[in-house]
Amino acid sequence: MSILVVGSVAFDTIATPSGRVTDILGGAATYFSLAASYFTEVRVVAVVGDDFTAENEAVFTKRGIDTRGIERTKGKSFRWGGRYLDNLNEAKTDFTELNVFEKFQPRIPKEYADTQFLFLANIHPSLQLAVRQEMNKVSLTGGDTMNFWIQGTPDELKQTLKSVDVLLINDTETKMLAAEKNLLRAANKVIALGPKALVVKHGEYGATIFFRENAFGVGSHPFRAPALPIDEVKDPTGAGDSFAGGFLGYIASQGEINREVLKRALFYGGVMGSFAVERFGTERLQQLSREEIDARFEIFRELTHLD
Amino acid sequence: MSILVVGSVAFDTIATPSGRVTDILGGAATYFSLAASYFTEVRVVAVVGDDFTAENEAVFTKRGIDTRGIERTKGKSFRWGGRYLDNLNEAKTDFTELNVFEKFQPRIPKEYADTQFLFLANIHPSLQLAVRQEMNKVSLTGGDTMNFWIQGTPDELKQTLKSVDVLLINDTETKMLAAEKNLLRAANKVIALGPKALVVKHGEYGATIFFRENAFGVGSHPFRAPALPIDEVKDPTGAGDSFAGGFLGYIASQGEINREVLKRALFYGGVMGSFAVERFGTERLQQLSREEIDARFEIFRELTHLD
Repeated sequence: MSILVVGSVAFDTIATPSGRVTDILGGAATYFSLAASYFTEVRVVAVVGDDFTAENEAVFTKRGIDTRGIERTKGKSFRWGGRYLDNLNEAKTDFTELNVFEKFQPRIPKEYADTQFLFLANIHPSLQLAVRQEMNKVSLTGGDTMNFWIQGTPDELKQTLKSVDVLLINDTETKMLAAEKNLLRAANKVIALGPKALVVKHGEYGATIFFRENAFGVGSHPFRAPALPIDEVKDPTGAGDSFAGGFLGYIASQGEINREVLKRALFYGGVMGSFAVERFGTERLQQLSREEIDARFEIFRELTHLD
Repeated sequence: MSILVVGSVAFDTIATPSGRVTDILGGAATYFSLAASYFTEVRVVAVVGDDFTAENEAVFTKRGIDTRGIERTKGKSFRWGGRYLDNLNEAKTDFTELNVFEKFQPRIPKEYADTQFLFLANIHPSLQLAVRQEMNKVSLTGGDTMNFWIQGTPDELKQTLKSVDVLLINDTETKMLAAEKNLLRAANKVIALGPKALVVKHGEYGATIFFRENAFGVGSHPFRAPALPIDEVKDPTGAGDSFAGGFLGYIASQGEINREVLKRALFYGGVMGSFAVERFGTERLQQLSREEIDARFEIFRELTHLD
């Protein structure tokens, strides 16, 4: 099975307690596609400037990722600068230069039309909706969003959420979107907006998936996957997109979509997030093997498994 | 097997988004002993004033808890007032009246001398140490502490930690005690101070147990138990002590102490904490059945269980 991700490819300048890097390859679509590439065929739709080099592209193609949907335009690529201080769960933005990303109009190559899975990374909800409507034959659509759209374009976002099957956001975003401080009640309110399932990412405490009643299985019991305690988080950037890549990549690799598949996918999401933060940028995600991934999946499983 | 808890019996005045209560029975030893009473024989050492009624005592005795170690003195019992605002994980203290608790000198009845398990609830570390030295034949000692002692009496606390087998504290306390912001590194530093295992409570995200290398089993892999998403936390007071009561009560009920027992105990801790917060004060903990507890244990197990 194949999965299409639509989102940003960017150059990031990052400072963490472990060090600093300048203009390294990043962006939600980059992290997502690298993480998903260990599970399934991945296709990307994004826009970059003339600063995107052959070497940058090779990061994708070496992992077998289809880059025909990465559009080149004149100008500079999206650039973001930020730092993590004491709280590694929260970035302080130093600068955001949208550059060519400001006028991003996702164009889906006709070769991508048969893609079965779709991930709408964190872009304007109206662009997400346009892509979703064009890709109206997919088996499953995952989506992301952020406080900027929740507060700035709530109507457009709610329109988009009606056609997203699984939304992946964090605790703060869930509570903000639902205008509700209790997580369980907030999750139920978000699910009432459209998604069949909601994945809430808790950073170092793992993630919970909440289900609409009888979606993908019986009942609506939530399920939790842990995160592994790590002795050094070098760079948290991209952890959420790597989580989404592991989660949806694993789902796309399976013959069917049911609760058991989604539960294991939640663990694989955590696994890919845990690899991502071990090095700056996408370094660790470029050099994994499926054996390493499955070995860590077993460690995650053992972490909460009672005999 | 039996377990002795030494700590506070108090009257609490609590405000949460769900309501307010005045002068209800509380205190660490109360929550702990009620939670543990569903698993094993419980004995209490505490001090109360002449405001402690027969009705208050019946809360203990109805659950079969041995109250011969609850000393009566002239004056008022310990009283605490606090409120929980948006963040249910953190209480804002309105007042603390130590009253008879100020001069608490734990006196252990001679009938308690054969107790096999010990829990040192959150009191001055020097009092904890004195009790520990007197109860020098116990199989396992659990302990609690708080920021007040970590910052105020660090030397006494470190002395006490040398003879505590399992310390149960939260994330903030762990990082403060270790002077280290990364949880895994902080946990290892705390274990180096003496405990064979450290249980870090994450509030709504569950708890993690970290082991000293080869303590209670092979290796030092941590283990995590989830917490159940709850749609209304009425009153978080006593959740941590109820957790400790479920955790140590379950251990005391088993014939041996090994990793599998400690893992299941971590789940039982979460179970008892989840019951405690459903009602104000100890109301819910007074009226449980072992069947309800085991049914919720199964829900917790399913919450993270992969087939």
